[in-house]
Amino acid sequence: MFLKNAWYVACLPEDLAEKPLGRKICNESMVFYRDGQGTAHALEDFCPHRGAPLSLGRVVNGNLVCGYHGLEMGCEGKTVAMPGQRVGGFPPIKRFAVTEKYGFIWVWAGNADQADLSLMPTLEWAESAEWAYGGGLYHINCDYRLMIDNLMDLTHETYVHASSIGQPEIDETPCVTKTDGDHVTTSRFMSNIEAPPFWKMALRGNNLPDDQLVDRWQICHFTPPSHVMIEVGVALAGHGGYDAPDDKKAYSIVVDFITPETDTSIWYFWGMARKFNVKDAALTAAIREGQGKIFSEDLEMLERQQANLLRLPDRRTLNLNIDAGGVQSRRVIDKCLATEGNA
Amino acid sequence: MFLKNAWYVACLPEDLAEKPLGRKICNESMVFYRDGQGTAHALEDFCPHRGAPLSLGRVVNGNLVCGYHGLEMGCEGKTVAMPGQRVGGFPPIKRFAVTEKYGFIWVWAGNADQADLSLMPTLEWAESAEWAYGGGLYHINCDYRLMIDNLMDLTHETYVHASSIGQPEIDETPCVTKTDGDHVTTSRFMSNIEAPPFWKMALRGNNLPDDQLVDRWQICHFTPPSHVMIEVGVALAGHGGYDAPDDKKAYSIVVDFITPETDTSIWYFWGMARKFNVKDAALTAAIREGQGKIFSEDLEMLERQQANLLRLPDRRTLNLNIDAGGVQSRRVIDKCLATEGNA
Amino acid sequence: MFLKNAWYVACLPEDLAEKPLGRKICNESMVFYRDGQGTAHALEDFCPHRGAPLSLGRVVNGNLVCGYHGLEMGCEGKTVAMPGQRVGGFPPIKRFAVTEKYGFIWVWAGNADQADLSLMPTLEWAESAEWAYGGGLYHINCDYRLMIDNLMDLTHETYVHASSIGQPEIDETPCVTKTDGDHVTTSRFMSNIEAPPFWKMALRGNNLPDDQLVDRWQICHFTPPSHVMIEVGVALAGHGGYDAPDDKKAYSIVVDFITPETDTSIWYFWGMARKFNVKDAALTAAIREGQGKIFSEDLEMLERQQANLLRLPDRRTLNLNIDAGGVQSRRVIDKCLATEGNA
Repeated sequence: MFLKNAWYVACLPEDLAEKPLGRKICNESMVFYRDGQGTAHALEDFCPHRGAPLSLGRVVNGNLVCGYHGLEMGCEGKTVAMPGQRVGGFPPIKRFAVTEKYGFIWVWAGNADQADLSLMPTLEWAESAEWAYGGGLYHINCDYRLMIDNLMDLTHETYVHASSIGQPEIDETPCVTKTDGDHVTTSRFMSNIEAPPFWKMALRGNNLPDDQLVDRWQICHFTPPSHVMIEVGVALAGHGGYDAPDDKKAYSIVVDFITPETDTSIWYFWGMARKFNVKDAALTAAIREGQGKIFSEDLEMLERQQANLLRLPDRRTLNLNIDAGGVQSRRVIDKCLATEGNA
Repeated sequence: MFLKNAWYVACLPEDLAEKPLGRKICNESMVFYRDGQGTAHALEDFCPHRGAPLSLGRVVNGNLVCGYHGLEMGCEGKTVAMPGQRVGGFPPIKRFAVTEKYGFIWVWAGNADQADLSLMPTLEWAESAEWAYGGGLYHINCDYRLMIDNLMDLTHETYVHASSIGQPEIDETPCVTKTDGDHVTTSRFMSNIEAPPFWKMALRGNNLPDDQLVDRWQICHFTPPSHVMIEVGVALAGHGGYDAPDDKKAYSIVVDFITPETDTSIWYFWGMARKFNVKDAALTAAIREGQGKIFSEDLEMLERQQANLLRLPDRRTLNLNIDAGGVQSRRVIDKCLATEGNA
Repeated sequence: MFLKNAWYVACLPEDLAEKPLGRKICNESMVFYRDGQGTAHALEDFCPHRGAPLSLGRVVNGNLVCGYHGLEMGCEGKTVAMPGQRVGGFPPIKRFAVTEKYGFIWVWAGNADQADLSLMPTLEWAESAEWAYGGGLYHINCDYRLMIDNLMDLTHETYVHASSIGQPEIDETPCVTKTDGDHVTTSRFMSNIEAPPFWKMALRGNNLPDDQLVDRWQICHFTPPSHVMIEVGVALAGHGGYDAPDDKKAYSIVVDFITPETDTSIWYFWGMARKFNVKDAALTAAIREGQGKIFSEDLEMLERQQANLLRLPDRRTLNLNIDAGGVQSRRVIDKCLATEGNA
């Protein structure tokens, strides 16, 4: 159960540099490619001739040519030509609306005619020279909502990521969760604590001392269909915390685009945008490596949690105060699903 | 849906040199072995004692001895002996008719009592000193009919095998397809074209120049249950094409025995018989290696086509003029299946 | 179909040295761990908070702490604490009765409240200084009863283990099978035979000549739920066989604890207890290595037998005199299952 009428991150621009990419998204097998002008397109990954996957083909003169018998498919899903054939009566295949923005290729999983660019998220960090970004992609066998739960309840950092970003003060500090329209926020502010190893590294990356007490914050933002942006950071204690000047803090946004592949698997695009020392490419690489290692620690937990839930489908789990972020996010999803169903 | 009352290639003679071979054919788990005289036999791969696979056993005194508790099975499927047991009342297991011919072990997938040697194909190339042969075996996860389609429509060479045997002239030259009884033929003749790389290699193999224009032909022959023999070759232009004398052409038969394993998997015995420079073993090896590489290019396409069709079972695909070979072959299969069902 | 109200070997003591162990037994996902006093416990491997597997957690202050969000689970299956939460109303999870004895961790697969220590087997070899023991664990994809059949009919040694413990005299010598309550025994005594290679090694291990004729015995003992202890050995001929003095024979017990994982897979704890030269650790290692190699020969046979039986569920197999041990053991199991079902 996922929203179809929504924009999902499908892949990175460089994934389409050489050849078409076949990727299943929201249970739809899609092929992504660039035409002669470099514009990205997505179609059903199914040649109307004999059912071969178009993603094994290549782009010639801007059209996607099936790698089996040479059918030339246009970007609207209508066959353009085929050697020795009249193609006027060939049945069309589904096309998907695609847009390239913010350093990602996005796809509208529902009816292309209803694709609504006004529903694209606004990502300031992706377009501003004041920010640097690095990220990666994991494939995980779990319902996308388990990953939303994970990201909207950061007490798991204390346990899953104990050696990098976890610390007991996260557990000890209550979070505040609220829903504003479709936007769910869950916030936690910690004062006068020791920075955990990852954040000491970040402080040094911003040329700040790593041996002083800090204020730390985590502000998780969920928006449909399944985007979670988390404002995170530490400031040297006594300078205003979240509101401290840039030269007294290390401030980042954890970027999470969770794209359902099937009901129980996801393409997880993770990354970190930072607002300090943005020209330091080595720092970008170090943060990316650190984050990749930390986020890989969630994989086994999520996959085995999913296996447990599949094994015991009738078993109820608990919704505690720490789960409010996930609970309210799921409520927003359910509301949007109902709206979509009625439309 | 495959014909049971037919001869299929099961394995190669050398596959039975050391020990029994377990192989599933037409959804039947079979064990193949040679008796004391070297005669090949096939039985159900199921010991009537406790259900162990007989293919884990060995041949002693001409009988297949179960590797679990020593039951001795005779080649008719009746238990011959077992240490300390009276075996008269043991239930028989299914036997399958086997014949060894043309360098292959063949099995009749249906009732052994109805096995009809007159239905064996006639393969002149396999018994004549004027021909040389080399081949191999691939396991592919697809319906056997998808491979028949593949072989009866060689326009795919232009796309799947672009760097070896493909060339645009294949697409540009219409094929002629006809059915004569159970025999479907689809032919294409191209004149005054450049030979593609594989055929330049073959021309050199027959001590002919590779820089002259050639005439090229492809004559695909389907016969039930699933054999496709393809006459292929090139002749130096101006010498009569297909009918050119042997010293002006390189003439071969692509040999394809497609043995269903299950509804969606096959044992694909491929090879090439050639009628030139037949004593050159190095040439045989070079052609075999080249063909093996070319034919491996079909694997991913066929397996992913099959996955697409399984995912979308109600989706209709197109039957174009180039598909006539496959369409008519399937029509012959359906007719034979109906006959078999009525018998 | 396996007995739940019974003790099964779950793991070895050293498996719990570092961290919790997740293992499925009798279709129940369990987590095993030691508390602060070192006492072993087993619980359902399911955190009541969000369904994460508790086996990914760790033990803190004697409680199992979930590795996802820090829920502290007590050994009775009741949540003890969780940071920032009142846990009184949390639903309990299933606990399993565990006992550590004879060098193994045992679990009662049924209701913990009915766990009955008087049903633990008595294993003299595991507690006496007159015996030495070595063993291992295999995971096999077969019904546990196929392994019982295997062990209660040792004629398979002649075929499966021909080069180590098999010999034709096993086939030639009838076995005697009887049931006494829930205890099934099948015995075979062979006189004046040559010792097979494994037993020659054992004779040398007891400083006895390996070039003399021997008497050999195999006495298989089945007891529910699925334990098979096999008295095995050889004595120099003419000294009383099974009753020969210890310095004229090599006498061992083959130890088989067969723990169902699912309906068609098992954890197979195998080993050998010997009553000769017990202080020779190198001999223990050599026997363990030899036995491990021999027992690995059964794996493919059992897994492919299981596959055959799953493929042909309606096919009846034979119960011969050599199968009496397995047949009577299954009868005992069926009787116990019926009793359990009525309770």
